[in-house]
Amino acid sequence: MINRLIQKIREKNAPVVVGLDPMLSYVPEKLQKAAFHEYGETLEGAAEAIWAFNKAIVDATCDLIPAVKPQAAMYEQFGVPGMAVYERTISYCQSKGLIVIGDVKRGDIGSTSEAYAIGHLGHVRVGDQEYSGFHEDFATVNPYLGSDGIRPFLKVCQQEKKGIFVLVKTSNPSSGEFQDRIVDGKPLYELVGEKVNEWGSEVMGERYSYVGAVVGATYPEQGRVLRHIMPNTMILVPGYGAQGGKGSDLVDFFDADGLGAIVNSSRGIICAYKKEAYSGYGEDHFADASRAAVIDMIRDINGALEAAK
Amino acid sequence: MINRLIQKIREKNAPVVVGLDPMLSYVPEKLQKAAFHEYGETLEGAAEAIWAFNKAIVDATCDLIPAVKPQAAMYEQFGVPGMAVYERTISYCQSKGLIVIGDVKRGDIGSTSEAYAIGHLGHVRVGDQEYSGFHEDFATVNPYLGSDGIRPFLKVCQQEKKGIFVLVKTSNPSSGEFQDRIVDGKPLYELVGEKVNEWGSEVMGERYSYVGAVVGATYPEQGRVLRHIMPNTMILVPGYGAQGGKGSDLVDFFDADGLGAIVNSSRGIICAYKKEAYSGYGEDHFADASRAAVIDMIRDINGALEAAK
Repeated sequence: MINRLIQKIREKNAPVVVGLDPMLSYVPEKLQKAAFHEYGETLEGAAEAIWAFNKAIVDATCDLIPAVKPQAAMYEQFGVPGMAVYERTISYCQSKGLIVIGDVKRGDIGSTSEAYAIGHLGHVRVGDQEYSGFHEDFATVNPYLGSDGIRPFLKVCQQEKKGIFVLVKTSNPSSGEFQDRIVDGKPLYELVGEKVNEWGSEVMGERYSYVGAVVGATYPEQGRVLRHIMPNTMILVPGYGAQGGKGSDLVDFFDADGLGAIVNSSRGIICAYKKEAYSGYGEDHFADASRAAVIDMIRDINGALEAAK
Repeated sequence: MINRLIQKIREKNAPVVVGLDPMLSYVPEKLQKAAFHEYGETLEGAAEAIWAFNKAIVDATCDLIPAVKPQAAMYEQFGVPGMAVYERTISYCQSKGLIVIGDVKRGDIGSTSEAYAIGHLGHVRVGDQEYSGFHEDFATVNPYLGSDGIRPFLKVCQQEKKGIFVLVKTSNPSSGEFQDRIVDGKPLYELVGEKVNEWGSEVMGERYSYVGAVVGATYPEQGRVLRHIMPNTMILVPGYGAQGGKGSDLVDFFDADGLGAIVNSSRGIICAYKKEAYSGYGEDHFADASRAAVIDMIRDINGALEAAK
């Protein structure tokens, strides 16, 4: 799947991923009303509104981008109907040829970690049948529990030819509270980066490993260092746009040939219609606003990569 | 809810929690067959088998224990039908007067962390209505992202009078890989423990805080140190039984009066019928075997606490 991701990035000439992180307040009123009319002001109604919103954005952007990253939390807040739309969104994106990175940030130990890996990337056996619960192509994973939490994911990734992105240095202001603490003369995130490199060496794709890393766009200095520590690691970069990162900050997350990283924007794309720059589209054309924002984002990042050559 | 948990522990004289972490292979064949007969060898069939298994164990043990801890991963592996049975299990346990600790180990940042907090502990607004998705009483949370990941949970906990247990020192063999690394002269888990204490001071119950900690039974030395670093923190102790911890190892996780900790056993209870000691019950009486194992576990822990007085 990592090989396919690289191929798709090349094909679309777009190292970007759209974060499908819908809050109900992002969904235009017309869509909300239609869903509530059919299902009432219920969890099912909320889930249906989000589904209609996602579908329109995917339809309007899928030819431009290699991948999407739905954020599980945004669906989980609507309980079981929310999780059903999480799965439906994943299926739909895959039917459109998109690679799906499930932003689930799961992490546990042993058989429990394996259950997460199976639920999100693998197949579960029921009698003589096999099923794949949420069937994302990649999942994000939290490293706090160490190798016992990661190895079960590696096993499933190897079986299924899928991948993970391990949290290394997250984009939020307080990420340094633990991640930046100095251990043996270097910050913890470097130590985690070294482990990512080690885990990844066991499951290599053509050029990059099945084990990627999450490094926030808001920390370009750290991105540069981690790029060197993890030479075979694909870096998923959140924090572009709404969280403050911009194209020129991101050059050092990439390899010299412009590969090796993929940049996520969520609110900046799916809420583009609420932003000054795209307000001309209006609520009725929210998906066109998202398309315009994707085009601008690709131009910004490719421009920065071009300028750095 | 932390006050209610303490009250329930006192009432039952049992600082124990039963981990509802069912694998399909734990479910006796008769129950599996009945579920498959009704729903086929499908995800729905697997979920139904697990539901019947859970219900029998809850019915057989609910008068003895204050709380249960369903492990989300075990349900998530069966996709949306699995999550529906996760919710159904929570509802049923609460109807039996049990406190439910959702072992979800979630953790993200800002509005995303808030969405997890809302989905698991809070209420989500849909039009003029409010719903609670999974409505656990407590949830486990991963601290790797720092305060930005925790504060949204604190906000929801305060609103709902619910609580969290933050991973501090986990029970698995490789937990030391990052958690034991020395930062400013002390291990990272102590640093996390200090933060738990600090976060907890903002949301105090009568004696213990809404913010608890997870510390593995397999690390009694560290438990003793953390007990002192976090004087107002309830400690959730996994790793008893199947992972190797026993009653006498656990004394130092408790305060002098025998409060302040709650010990989890999962496989040791729900798979008791497969163990030599309880094999006399047979597969048909698996729930009675679980009851016997709970009684033995309570006796082991209370005995150790008594002996240490």
